[in-house]
Amino acid sequence: MSFDTLLKTSVETRGSPDAAALADLRAIVGDAHVSVTAGDLDAAGKATIPDPKRPGVIVSPASAAEVAAVLRTCGRHGLHVWPVSAGRNWGYGSSSAVREGAVLLRLSRMNRIIEVNEALAYAVIEPGVTYRQLRGHLDAKHPGLWCDTTDGPPEGSVIGNALDRGLGVTHYGDHFGTLCGMEVVLPTGELMTTGGGPEGCKTLHTHKWGVGPYVEGLFSQSNLGVVTRAGVWLMPKPEAFASFTFDLTRGADLPKLVDIIRDLALRNIVTSAVHLVNDVCTLSVLSQYPAHLATTHSRLPDDVRRELRAKYLVGDWSFGGGLQGTKAQVRIAKRELRRRLAPLGRLMFVDDSTVALASRVHAAARRGPLAKPLEWAVRRFAGKSLEMLEAGPHIHGVLKGIPSDYFVRHAYFKSSTPRPDRAQPDRDDIGLIWFAPIAPMTGGHVDELIGICRPLFERFGFDFYAALLVQNARSMILLTSIFFRKDDPRQVDGARALYAALGEATSRAGYQTYRMGVSSMGSLARTAPAFVSFTRRLKQAIDPDGMLAPGKYGA
Amino acid sequence: MSFDTLLKTSVETRGSPDAAALADLRAIVGDAHVSVTAGDLDAAGKATIPDPKRPGVIVSPASAAEVAAVLRTCGRHGLHVWPVSAGRNWGYGSSSAVREGAVLLRLSRMNRIIEVNEALAYAVIEPGVTYRQLRGHLDAKHPGLWCDTTDGPPEGSVIGNALDRGLGVTHYGDHFGTLCGMEVVLPTGELMTTGGGPEGCKTLHTHKWGVGPYVEGLFSQSNLGVVTRAGVWLMPKPEAFASFTFDLTRGADLPKLVDIIRDLALRNIVTSAVHLVNDVCTLSVLSQYPAHLATTHSRLPDDVRRELRAKYLVGDWSFGGGLQGTKAQVRIAKRELRRRLAPLGRLMFVDDSTVALASRVHAAARRGPLAKPLEWAVRRFAGKSLEMLEAGPHIHGVLKGIPSDYFVRHAYFKSSTPRPDRAQPDRDDIGLIWFAPIAPMTGGHVDELIGICRPLFERFGFDFYAALLVQNARSMILLTSIFFRKDDPRQVDGARALYAALGEATSRAGYQTYRMGVSSMGSLARTAPAFVSFTRRLKQAIDPDGMLAPGKYGA
Repeated sequence: MSFDTLLKTSVETRGSPDAAALADLRAIVGDAHVSVTAGDLDAAGKATIPDPKRPGVIVSPASAAEVAAVLRTCGRHGLHVWPVSAGRNWGYGSSSAVREGAVLLRLSRMNRIIEVNEALAYAVIEPGVTYRQLRGHLDAKHPGLWCDTTDGPPEGSVIGNALDRGLGVTHYGDHFGTLCGMEVVLPTGELMTTGGGPEGCKTLHTHKWGVGPYVEGLFSQSNLGVVTRAGVWLMPKPEAFASFTFDLTRGADLPKLVDIIRDLALRNIVTSAVHLVNDVCTLSVLSQYPAHLATTHSRLPDDVRRELRAKYLVGDWSFGGGLQGTKAQVRIAKRELRRRLAPLGRLMFVDDSTVALASRVHAAARRGPLAKPLEWAVRRFAGKSLEMLEAGPHIHGVLKGIPSDYFVRHAYFKSSTPRPDRAQPDRDDIGLIWFAPIAPMTGGHVDELIGICRPLFERFGFDFYAALLVQNARSMILLTSIFFRKDDPRQVDGARALYAALGEATSRAGYQTYRMGVSSMGSLARTAPAFVSFTRRLKQAIDPDGMLAPGKYGA
Repeated sequence: MSFDTLLKTSVETRGSPDAAALADLRAIVGDAHVSVTAGDLDAAGKATIPDPKRPGVIVSPASAAEVAAVLRTCGRHGLHVWPVSAGRNWGYGSSSAVREGAVLLRLSRMNRIIEVNEALAYAVIEPGVTYRQLRGHLDAKHPGLWCDTTDGPPEGSVIGNALDRGLGVTHYGDHFGTLCGMEVVLPTGELMTTGGGPEGCKTLHTHKWGVGPYVEGLFSQSNLGVVTRAGVWLMPKPEAFASFTFDLTRGADLPKLVDIIRDLALRNIVTSAVHLVNDVCTLSVLSQYPAHLATTHSRLPDDVRRELRAKYLVGDWSFGGGLQGTKAQVRIAKRELRRRLAPLGRLMFVDDSTVALASRVHAAARRGPLAKPLEWAVRRFAGKSLEMLEAGPHIHGVLKGIPSDYFVRHAYFKSSTPRPDRAQPDRDDIGLIWFAPIAPMTGGHVDELIGICRPLFERFGFDFYAALLVQNARSMILLTSIFFRKDDPRQVDGARALYAALGEATSRAGYQTYRMGVSSMGSLARTAPAFVSFTRRLKQAIDPDGMLAPGKYGA
């Protein structure tokens, strides 16, 4: 029997957990940590993407030993398991498995920060540790160290994001790149430490490649094991830090700007994982759809978009980045940025004191006797709207690795309800799909990729949200977001169709996605058959019954 | 049958290639590229380590298709295959397989530079491409790009070194870290491209992790496939470059110095893969054993070592590094180095013009009317011997990534014959074993590791050669070298025993080696049984007959 058929059969014959399986699971983690209540399963099965899959049971282990016992038990009972760390995989599937009825293995109780090594600048943590928790711990106990964060949910899992090869914002933004040394529970329930040993190896969390084959990559974007502990490299707090924002004057200069950013990145002038965002992206952070359009339009009419751009002073493309190092390093980086970027647009530098000033100005311009003239002055001389001024401290902070709830609000762009302080888009029935192809970082490639995607957004009637993220000095992700209303079946259908069309068109043009949503993972077998044939052989060797996250990234 | 037994049986029953196998191999690559002459096999079976293994046949394919056909043929005939790129794996085994009688798959004919992408700063090359070849090609055709090099043989393979996770000297010194996108022939003869596709993927050589599981690590320090093509990231030529040398005044300050280097590396002040070397290491580059001692002593007597140190002005520890970037970046890096290092020793900066001057002074001090006073002045004011002055340009060059034959001469330290211009230690019966454990980069760890190794060198009666290499900002390799005479059976026995004792003692203390010699790879199964059990499962899935490089890194 081929592996495909085997996998298909074994998964299709898997049912929901029966009473015996539930009893076994409860015996492992305790009654309180196994749930089959409809409310819990419904909530866990909600996601911002269309057609998420509802799990059959939720199990929350407290240790690697419990994870191992759960996997062995599920194997025995013919159940398939979908591990999630914090379940914040918004836009790609949240907590949803590829297939219905999974045992949702929720690792959020495993949230210990096991070690912080100040000299060597790393932490050893469990998968339930969130960005907010890690940063809070560092600020309180180890103020000489900073961690990276995403501009996504502060409650996201540091390990979960890294294993899905997510991207942050600082020079430690390549999250998988800063992961070093793992403890993994294999589908058989065996516990393995990566790195090639020996037992108690002192470089487990400092030497990324270890000795012997480097296998940690096998546990990223895959389904070969459950990572229950990992080392994460941290930054020494720099002597000096400044952030900058840049607004491109002419949209047509985007390719030129991309080439400059690449050169600055290759020459280590800009080392942070820059996010270059378009107007819709900025508007989605600063504002919401006008109420009268939210339920009627899947796409902002051009004149409304123009009005919003004028109101919030938003241009075609803008980006921010962090500069860190010694005072002299930051000073010369500023000088170099000015030399390279100033001819193309408006460049502003921000430090901790300007941020404090901006906050005071913002407060005063919101109310009080000088509100009107202050707002005028801010718009006139800084070229910023009050909303941009309000965003400033969050941008500056996140570029220092400080998590913020601020940016996640963009998910509510098309929602009729006001944005909550803490975004919960799954719960709030937000419709949002990320689609994130990646291009060589040249103006030509990025322009070509946008040229493929933007017309599809227009054809299917959705706003073209685009953020260009520097994955490394040679690659740029085009993160697009499909905002749709879940209460409008035509928009749901349209979002599904646009997503499929984007995948099809970009892949045909030779662009891969840097990360996939659970509903599209099946396409890997079509687009890279030799590669998937290889990874499936690995899968069969490590998980012969295909019980762990079947279908994840094509295997 | 367990995999172990299976592997053992299948390898033990493998014989030398018979006439039918040879005919098949000749039909694939052509008569001229299959050799079973005693001279060729003897030469290929020579290595600087004790007990190298002689191959049964040497096959030199010209393309990936030929590699695939060779692997299929060898599988059919029950032969095992040992691929080498350029065969310069000196100190670890040269071209030697783990086991006797291999089909030596020599990839040196596959030496095409397929692409150089100037904008994205990478090259796509075949495994036969050497450092000298790549650098020559760049200098001639793409002078805006630099490649890294090792301070080992210029004829070493760029891909071969990277796959064995070797280390260079610049900020691109982590060679596996700069490898991106591979074409691999699997043991079954299938051709696979890494990275997850799609076909013709444009980010194959720019986005290291690809999509889906990151599998390239499986082809490093392993035996799961033959890499026939890979992308290698290159550096944009910096606007400014300077090198520096530093001599530590008091040997006892080494731990302090290691901590400073770590801090400078974590803060991106020192980004090159610094080599911090001890007196024996420097002496081995500058000089040879006094002739009357070479055949009689396995270790320099202390008084002779003191004399040589005085003659060549060599201290306990010294290191060099490169500084590159904009002029301002280099200037402030110098300032920072001066601030941190000057209190501990003598720091000198070198640029292209001082190097030219040094060469002229060296020439004049070697002969001519001013030779004596010039030598005196160089020793008195620069603190350098003439031999150090001669080394200067090579150090400066290699730190810019320019390969040099100069350093490899150190292999002849204990040889009775003068050092040739191009070192060929295998041919010249040089005895040399590398042993390279890795430590977290703290003064405490490095000191502990030296404290384990140095007494063993003394106990077994060998010179303690040590080079501390910055693998990354958190890890330091202690590269030690056992120099021994192959014509002295007691020294050969002693070298074997010392090597075993070093492996035993460092492993027991929790230190792994960053790279292994072919004669010690069997120990991985003992020191990391769970890890090797995992990699053997992968091996069985990808190479069920264990025909490719059996025993390599324990699998």
